[in-house]
Amino acid sequence: MTDASATVTPSQGFHEDGSPERLAIDTIRTLSMDAVQKANSGHPGTPMALAPIAYTLWRDYLRYDPETPDWPNRDRFVLSVGHASMLLYSVLHLAGVVEIGADGQKTGKPAVSLDDIRQFRQLDSKTPGHPEYRMTTGVETTTGPLGQGCGNSVGMAIAERALAAKYNRPGFNLFDHDVYVLSGDGDMMEGVSGEAASVAGHLKLSNLCWVYDSNHITIEGGTDLAFDEDVGKRFEAYGWQVIHVDDANDTAAFAKALDAFKACTDRPTFIQVHSVIGWGSPKAGSEKAHGEALGEDAVRATKKAYGWPEDAQFLVPDGVKEAFTAAVADRGKPAREEWEALFERYRQEFPAEAQQIDDLRHGKIADGWQEAVPSFPADAKGLASRDSGGKVLNALAPKIPALMGGAADLSPSTKTDIKGLPSFEPNNYAGQNMHFGVREHAMGSIANGMALSYLRSYTATFLVFADYMRAPIRLAAIMELPVVFVFTHDSIGVGEDGPTHQPIEHLATLRAIPGLDTIRPGDANEVAQAWKVALTHTHEPSVLVFSRQAIATLDREKYASAEELEKGAYVLGGAEEPEVILIGTGSELPMVVAAHEKLTAEGVKSRVVSMPSWYLFEKQDQAYRESVFPPAVTARVAVEQGGSMGWDRYVTSGGATITMSTFGASAPIAKLQEKYGFTVDNVVKVAREVMEKAK
Amino acid sequence: MTDASATVTPSQGFHEDGSPERLAIDTIRTLSMDAVQKANSGHPGTPMALAPIAYTLWRDYLRYDPETPDWPNRDRFVLSVGHASMLLYSVLHLAGVVEIGADGQKTGKPAVSLDDIRQFRQLDSKTPGHPEYRMTTGVETTTGPLGQGCGNSVGMAIAERALAAKYNRPGFNLFDHDVYVLSGDGDMMEGVSGEAASVAGHLKLSNLCWVYDSNHITIEGGTDLAFDEDVGKRFEAYGWQVIHVDDANDTAAFAKALDAFKACTDRPTFIQVHSVIGWGSPKAGSEKAHGEALGEDAVRATKKAYGWPEDAQFLVPDGVKEAFTAAVADRGKPAREEWEALFERYRQEFPAEAQQIDDLRHGKIADGWQEAVPSFPADAKGLASRDSGGKVLNALAPKIPALMGGAADLSPSTKTDIKGLPSFEPNNYAGQNMHFGVREHAMGSIANGMALSYLRSYTATFLVFADYMRAPIRLAAIMELPVVFVFTHDSIGVGEDGPTHQPIEHLATLRAIPGLDTIRPGDANEVAQAWKVALTHTHEPSVLVFSRQAIATLDREKYASAEELEKGAYVLGGAEEPEVILIGTGSELPMVVAAHEKLTAEGVKSRVVSMPSWYLFEKQDQAYRESVFPPAVTARVAVEQGGSMGWDRYVTSGGATITMSTFGASAPIAKLQEKYGFTVDNVVKVAREVMEKAK
Repeated sequence: MTDASATVTPSQGFHEDGSPERLAIDTIRTLSMDAVQKANSGHPGTPMALAPIAYTLWRDYLRYDPETPDWPNRDRFVLSVGHASMLLYSVLHLAGVVEIGADGQKTGKPAVSLDDIRQFRQLDSKTPGHPEYRMTTGVETTTGPLGQGCGNSVGMAIAERALAAKYNRPGFNLFDHDVYVLSGDGDMMEGVSGEAASVAGHLKLSNLCWVYDSNHITIEGGTDLAFDEDVGKRFEAYGWQVIHVDDANDTAAFAKALDAFKACTDRPTFIQVHSVIGWGSPKAGSEKAHGEALGEDAVRATKKAYGWPEDAQFLVPDGVKEAFTAAVADRGKPAREEWEALFERYRQEFPAEAQQIDDLRHGKIADGWQEAVPSFPADAKGLASRDSGGKVLNALAPKIPALMGGAADLSPSTKTDIKGLPSFEPNNYAGQNMHFGVREHAMGSIANGMALSYLRSYTATFLVFADYMRAPIRLAAIMELPVVFVFTHDSIGVGEDGPTHQPIEHLATLRAIPGLDTIRPGDANEVAQAWKVALTHTHEPSVLVFSRQAIATLDREKYASAEELEKGAYVLGGAEEPEVILIGTGSELPMVVAAHEKLTAEGVKSRVVSMPSWYLFEKQDQAYRESVFPPAVTARVAVEQGGSMGWDRYVTSGGATITMSTFGASAPIAKLQEKYGFTVDNVVKVAREVMEKAK
Repeated sequence: MTDASATVTPSQGFHEDGSPERLAIDTIRTLSMDAVQKANSGHPGTPMALAPIAYTLWRDYLRYDPETPDWPNRDRFVLSVGHASMLLYSVLHLAGVVEIGADGQKTGKPAVSLDDIRQFRQLDSKTPGHPEYRMTTGVETTTGPLGQGCGNSVGMAIAERALAAKYNRPGFNLFDHDVYVLSGDGDMMEGVSGEAASVAGHLKLSNLCWVYDSNHITIEGGTDLAFDEDVGKRFEAYGWQVIHVDDANDTAAFAKALDAFKACTDRPTFIQVHSVIGWGSPKAGSEKAHGEALGEDAVRATKKAYGWPEDAQFLVPDGVKEAFTAAVADRGKPAREEWEALFERYRQEFPAEAQQIDDLRHGKIADGWQEAVPSFPADAKGLASRDSGGKVLNALAPKIPALMGGAADLSPSTKTDIKGLPSFEPNNYAGQNMHFGVREHAMGSIANGMALSYLRSYTATFLVFADYMRAPIRLAAIMELPVVFVFTHDSIGVGEDGPTHQPIEHLATLRAIPGLDTIRPGDANEVAQAWKVALTHTHEPSVLVFSRQAIATLDREKYASAEELEKGAYVLGGAEEPEVILIGTGSELPMVVAAHEKLTAEGVKSRVVSMPSWYLFEKQDQAYRESVFPPAVTARVAVEQGGSMGWDRYVTSGGATITMSTFGASAPIAKLQEKYGFTVDNVVKVAREVMEKAK
């Protein structure tokens, strides 16, 4: 268990009180210092400052069974200050948290061993620079980009309230856990945390507690350089209970604050803790303690100040781990066991609900939902894909109890309300329609948190505002969370609202994110299949891109089935050995089909390909891909009311794109389509040009 | 002047007091209603609610000469609620603002005529759906994406303080204008406005006044659905003076609030005005008055309620425009004339400073700065491009008085401080280094505002956090503002911080924005040229992408001059008629050069191309482009430690990319480069593969 034979005699340190508590706290501190020093990379100062906070929270409050870290009703601990990852790894080690494998089974290993800590920030280690969900058991969410953990925590707290409202019964408090966050000055400066805090205050999430580490230091220097607002007062304005703790080392005062959180039932709680970064080190209170190894001399000096053996590295004094693990487990294990017993009784009484909970835990949607996927008859007039999207969502929602989401104050436009169901509001946590307000960034971050707590979350806004929420979309992809991000008003089809509201580059920027399935369906039946694919994904987030304007519903007797969408791109119809391939997505598909029909009528051997998802297409084997785009046919035209970025891959240098090379303009859609060349005649013209070139 | 022969007899209306004030206010309201109705698209409710506010502000406070709307010391009016564009167009019309052409000369036309208003939201009109900078004189910034106008206004207020500190002299108050903003619930919910407000409070920008239209209505319904925080208290927490006006129609109360703003010298002012959306219409107080035409019946009913001729459209009653124009001009014109006279005296006494101000006004950098662009000797060890970037910035700063910027709390890492100069802080507005705090989104938005007020602004953070500030980057491109966005830590070269901090898709997502020059220089001399190009741009924002890790400085005796960077891509060296073309950017350039040298030594006719800017390359003529990439040579390899999106255009289907197809990992850089194939040996191997394929 220990690295040094020395038994620590806690006596010499200038701030040493000889208590087992201090021994444990300084163990967290020195493990963090040693790991950063060995990696010669990382952030020692915040773990050193917040060790007493993490110790107190985990030892005396967190309801968590180290042997069952996937217990659904565990309290959540979110390290929004992800750069302080060694704080979390140290605690996971000392708490004796066991590892759960990708298959959901215990591996028999610790979540974080001392050897893992020695491998801090090394390739393929379980202790990467920032905590990564799925990589290390006990990491509840991937953090690092500031403010995101705060947003996630609001989603987790919402999920707890929603699950409690849905599944708890008299005598069966299945869901009653809390969500704790450690956050810092950076989190508080980021707008996303303010947005999320406003949502949490509005929703009166009394199961949510943010600890704010106010250390007066940022990377550029003191917070007085850029950050001297009254953060506590701001949180009061959001409707939170606000508590101040003057000294992070005062564990009794912090415990009292946590008691106040536990006692408060009508608001979230914000605990502002004043700390000294790099506490006890020669660099204490300085930005120099933030983002780099302290240096060997400073490490030794700090250990001396702690009354720690200066030469010992990765030292866990005898008894420290055992005592910490026991303290956490003594509270968490019986609670978890009671819960399991309760759940078994619940299963007897409410078998359907229990089955739903089992499904939630395993990220599974009960069979049969696929049959609810609607189909739409051919219709030349058609309907906007936002409208068909709304219909599909409403058809599926009753079959998928975990489905929950909403819009950033645009649901009448995005059509993402589940009709007839109430809103999720402080007076009704059984409501299912979320109102995120005009807060796209928090919406994405909250949706990720909901997904981390078993819900199939979705969000909605206009495509152009994807720019406001890219960080959480990217994190959903990194975490492999199957969140569905709906974006409507997806092109210059927005019309009169003009360039600020017309996406151009956005499809490319979403397609560029690894592990994200961006789907732009081309008619109502593709919309239905797009939702189906998105909900079938278990490890990928999806972006569903819908139009504002009507799209004809194709006659699927005449053209291939929309179920082919699952392959990403497919031949809708046309010649077996085409002279030219026309490719369309989304609202441009009818235009491309019309051009194809015109060319066919003119005797040209034309093929029309629908290409709703590059992501899915790239997953197909080469034979399939070449069956859609035969290499010999270089005369290809792609039509999309967005930028051209990336299309060269599919049209090749022999082909052409009809795309946008500038921002759009404010005008009725027909005028814009004419101006920018999105007409059947122009598609035909360009098709003939590339055919000429291919000769 | 009027559309109807009727002279309005203001007597019948239920809220009609018969005053000239009410006549003017209702003119603004009815013009807005009529324009939206004619376009059958737009947002009537907010102009109707805020007409008294805009009227009072413009008529009695704004220091603005309608005949010289480009007067540098004019007060700025920012319509952050950009959807309420008709409010602004109505006011610009009634105030008689004249048009300034793209050449800076008066065109002899009004900025907004009644005919322009009739063309609301039509193609190529001066009255697009949202106000667009450069399209309509008097529009100080493009707004629409919520919160952006708020952020811009902070940049404008900063610019005023900075220019005053730099150029005002005793007796010469050249710069002493104010910045006013109309904002709404949506603005207040967006995190970017909170970030910007915190900056403004910290900086004690007493020249900044935000009017917040609190109308209790959002698109989904009442603000009680998602937004019931105490906004005023929040602004007090940011350090603002907060004033409440109970009724937007109470122009006296609003005037009193503006007086309090004018009297306050140590803080920005926040005026919360309670209004009724769609005031006076049958849809008043409802979300139905927000985002669509009222309908002909409702328009008539509203006019009737106003005591307005129900059949008159686009009616400006006799005398209304004349009185409004006169009121604005009577204050603004003498002030502007005095200023011009003052400036002439200033020019006598401070000719150098006056010349600088002239240059600022014309977006010009005084000749001679190009000579300060440094050059770097060949150096195999090299230096990180963030370091050479810092050196170049520091070499140029003394020559470019308008250059001003900073980082989002990362300047020690981004190396973007101008050494030896003080910080821009509330006690020293003459400081030049900005501290934006961990607020990337506001940073971008503030930088745009600074650029709108004559400064050559720059920002800095890590490339991965470009995700937090995409909206302002895009708006800089839409507005054609030459802001320089510096992003360092540009790839998996970030190393141990891991996937949350390693950009993958970001280069593609920036290259995809129209009108944005994204430059990723490949050695210190390209860094120097990149800064030169960025500062030469007058109508394009630039993104400068720099590495965390060292890059060898190429021997430019042996390879082509870095000045070729201005063409976007250029042949560094190698065979005249190559068998294979190797393409590199940024930190991968030395690797590509080494592979080229190895292939050359092995007898392969290899060419090496440096490609720092796709944007600049696409501006070259076809002959040049084909001289760099001869169509006959299809064996091409591009090497970039980012995603592959877009590279197919340059490597063609005959080529290959060595790029990232997944997120990165936490490990030392050398381990990552080995894992992902970024080694000289792998470049050589892939080069030989594509050569084989090309045979």
